[in-house]
Amino acid sequence: MGRERLGGFTRLEKYEDALSRLLTQVNITLESEKVLVTDAVGRVVAEDTYSLRDYPPVDRAALDGYAVKSLDVLSASPSNPAILKIVGSVEAGETPKLTISSGEAAMVFTGATMPEGSDAVIPFEEAVRKESFVYVLRPAQKYKNVSRAGEDIKKGDLIIKRGLTVRPWHVAALIEAGITEIKVFKKPRVGIINVGNELLAGGGGEIPNSTGPLIYAYLKELGCEPVLIGVVPDDVEEISNTVSRVLRDFDILITTGGTSVGGKDLVPEALSRIKNANLIFHGINLRPGRTAGAYLIEGKPVLMFSGLPVAALVGLEAFVKPLIRKLTEATPPPEPTVRVRVRRRVTNIVGFKSFFRVVVYRENSELYMEPLRLSGSGIVSTLLKGNAILIVDENIEGYDEDDQVSVTLIGPIYKGRPEFLDQEIQTPP
Amino acid sequence: MGRERLGGFTRLEKYEDALSRLLTQVNITLESEKVLVTDAVGRVVAEDTYSLRDYPPVDRAALDGYAVKSLDVLSASPSNPAILKIVGSVEAGETPKLTISSGEAAMVFTGATMPEGSDAVIPFEEAVRKESFVYVLRPAQKYKNVSRAGEDIKKGDLIIKRGLTVRPWHVAALIEAGITEIKVFKKPRVGIINVGNELLAGGGGEIPNSTGPLIYAYLKELGCEPVLIGVVPDDVEEISNTVSRVLRDFDILITTGGTSVGGKDLVPEALSRIKNANLIFHGINLRPGRTAGAYLIEGKPVLMFSGLPVAALVGLEAFVKPLIRKLTEATPPPEPTVRVRVRRRVTNIVGFKSFFRVVVYRENSELYMEPLRLSGSGIVSTLLKGNAILIVDENIEGYDEDDQVSVTLIGPIYKGRPEFLDQEIQTPP
Repeated sequence: MGRERLGGFTRLEKYEDALSRLLTQVNITLESEKVLVTDAVGRVVAEDTYSLRDYPPVDRAALDGYAVKSLDVLSASPSNPAILKIVGSVEAGETPKLTISSGEAAMVFTGATMPEGSDAVIPFEEAVRKESFVYVLRPAQKYKNVSRAGEDIKKGDLIIKRGLTVRPWHVAALIEAGITEIKVFKKPRVGIINVGNELLAGGGGEIPNSTGPLIYAYLKELGCEPVLIGVVPDDVEEISNTVSRVLRDFDILITTGGTSVGGKDLVPEALSRIKNANLIFHGINLRPGRTAGAYLIEGKPVLMFSGLPVAALVGLEAFVKPLIRKLTEATPPPEPTVRVRVRRRVTNIVGFKSFFRVVVYRENSELYMEPLRLSGSGIVSTLLKGNAILIVDENIEGYDEDDQVSVTLIGPIYKGRPEFLDQEIQTPP
Repeated sequence: MGRERLGGFTRLEKYEDALSRLLTQVNITLESEKVLVTDAVGRVVAEDTYSLRDYPPVDRAALDGYAVKSLDVLSASPSNPAILKIVGSVEAGETPKLTISSGEAAMVFTGATMPEGSDAVIPFEEAVRKESFVYVLRPAQKYKNVSRAGEDIKKGDLIIKRGLTVRPWHVAALIEAGITEIKVFKKPRVGIINVGNELLAGGGGEIPNSTGPLIYAYLKELGCEPVLIGVVPDDVEEISNTVSRVLRDFDILITTGGTSVGGKDLVPEALSRIKNANLIFHGINLRPGRTAGAYLIEGKPVLMFSGLPVAALVGLEAFVKPLIRKLTEATPPPEPTVRVRVRRRVTNIVGFKSFFRVVVYRENSELYMEPLRLSGSGIVSTLLKGNAILIVDENIEGYDEDDQVSVTLIGPIYKGRPEFLDQEIQTPP
């Protein structure tokens, strides 16, 4: 690739290599904590969790009806009904005080413990009651309409695996399994340091710090505990001191700004001065986001991203999300991926792994995709209009009209082609 | 459909009709509240929010380089370079103290305000510096590498629409648009009442209340503020009193248990006794979940679901999710839907809209789906093993082997066919 694409780097490293190095070199063990099962939804489980008991604990009626001995109704038919004496009833939650002998039946309601001696339930609507007798018109097998003890969950069954995120159904299963507290990973604590005089009040030409809160919100969504440490001026010593001072309070640090190798290369310089700091990577074939870098300091990752929000967002997707998943050993949740037809060519610069914000819309019940005509990694409006992410690999020149590609949806699909796709905005390359 | 499928109801209403009636009859207006933009992620926006300013506020350098007058470099080439005198530099965040006249250039860094008189930036790597002069070897158009004032966001531009959930990029855009607080809907307050003697301690044959926490967790995930009000015994008056007493504290109430029309039909009876209670529906062609019902009391919905967790979950998906979305006017977020090949027939009972928990796995890079051989709406283990939901419409008899269907993923895709698919467990129909 041409030198101008390198943005001052002598070489850009392949994204996959850099990521793999990051994941290998970072070996933090997140602490875990016990939380009430009811509070565990959304948390990542820290240990394989097994059932403490059989569930249901006893045989139970699966519906409202008559508890019978199946042998009594084995040959029942409309012409030869089994006639059974109703000897009582059992509600759900009651301990049955009766026993069913041959020729007898008891009314039982959904969830009721099956009375001793009974082994099948005839639904009310499949039987005819006459005074204190019930006429059963059809046969029923053993355990028909009975929830068997332990049929749902057995003591020792795996309920939820380490690395899974607790969903509502896990909560129900854990409770049935007799578990009230569960071990989950503590939320990773991530500190955010935004570097740049332009972000400080009083500098004149002041720029609002939008990238800090963007990262904060992204980490919140990801299940982390982010902290906005604040803005640090363009000063190598101040950056270095800040990182050294706060590192012990966090599992991960993220810095923004000051990462280009151009006129100012403050953050890498500042980090390299810290004792035991080892460069993991700096300068990646990502578009946007090629200035991304990472150091390992005292075993903790310090990630360096661009101060431009769109480039920082790619850094989060490309490095922080996989890293957080590694720390919690989390199985990635399913992502909303759709196949779409390319409506306007997407051009990639070969050698770069590019993250495109694209627009997905439905027309005549087909899904189409167009890249936004906006570009430039500082352009936040692309983030508002784009509703999907297209990742194009470094060895692909792009996609032509009518190609089919997969994209990840990050917002609702547009109904019809949005008009803004016709506007072209002059932006930096 | 046969009478036995009706479970004691004289008729089951079509799901779509019941839902449409629910959404029409419930006309609650949720209150809204102002929150800090940084705390807004995940909340639903309550009013269209427009930019308060242009962004960027001034023309800025899009990269590190030399700010020049484009007219000076119009015919620059390697054989005929434009030679410009470097008169100073501007850092990001500084107010430029210099003006560029013809024949002059200034060093500028990414994000720096363009000095008066300059209108293009030549990247450092595309120019050659000799002492206090720079040799520009290629022409640059007006505004080349300049982020124009207002090019990203214009005052009055729509930043985020009512009904959208705030994502990290919205946070960045809102800050750039000069907005620090945003109006979001208050989280819907939903009270959960679990009915059943079997859930009360001391009854003997006690059953753990797993459906209450399941609903609580589901509502948390959905962005509500749920409250577990507690367990109420199987007593019409107690149910009625509890609902009347707590109704004013909530936007929505959900009851579980006591909804079948069989031996005990306590909740509908209890609700009908409350003043101004109007039945919206009861008895739906849903599998599982046919006993679902709803009343409108003092304008508020009181939903009645089965006490069995799997059936209650279908009630939440089928009724509560659309209702919450209506209240917040929320655009549904994209769901992870995949096309899969049916590997084992799925049989539906015509007339029922059925929610199947199914297993999706990848084999030889194709996605396959099989229904779980487990059934019965009380069976929580289906929820643990199934990783997708297949909804089969009432007029469809099922899907055959090799059919292609769409399912919604609720968990990670299995690698290879899981062994548990071969186990068949005898459960109630």
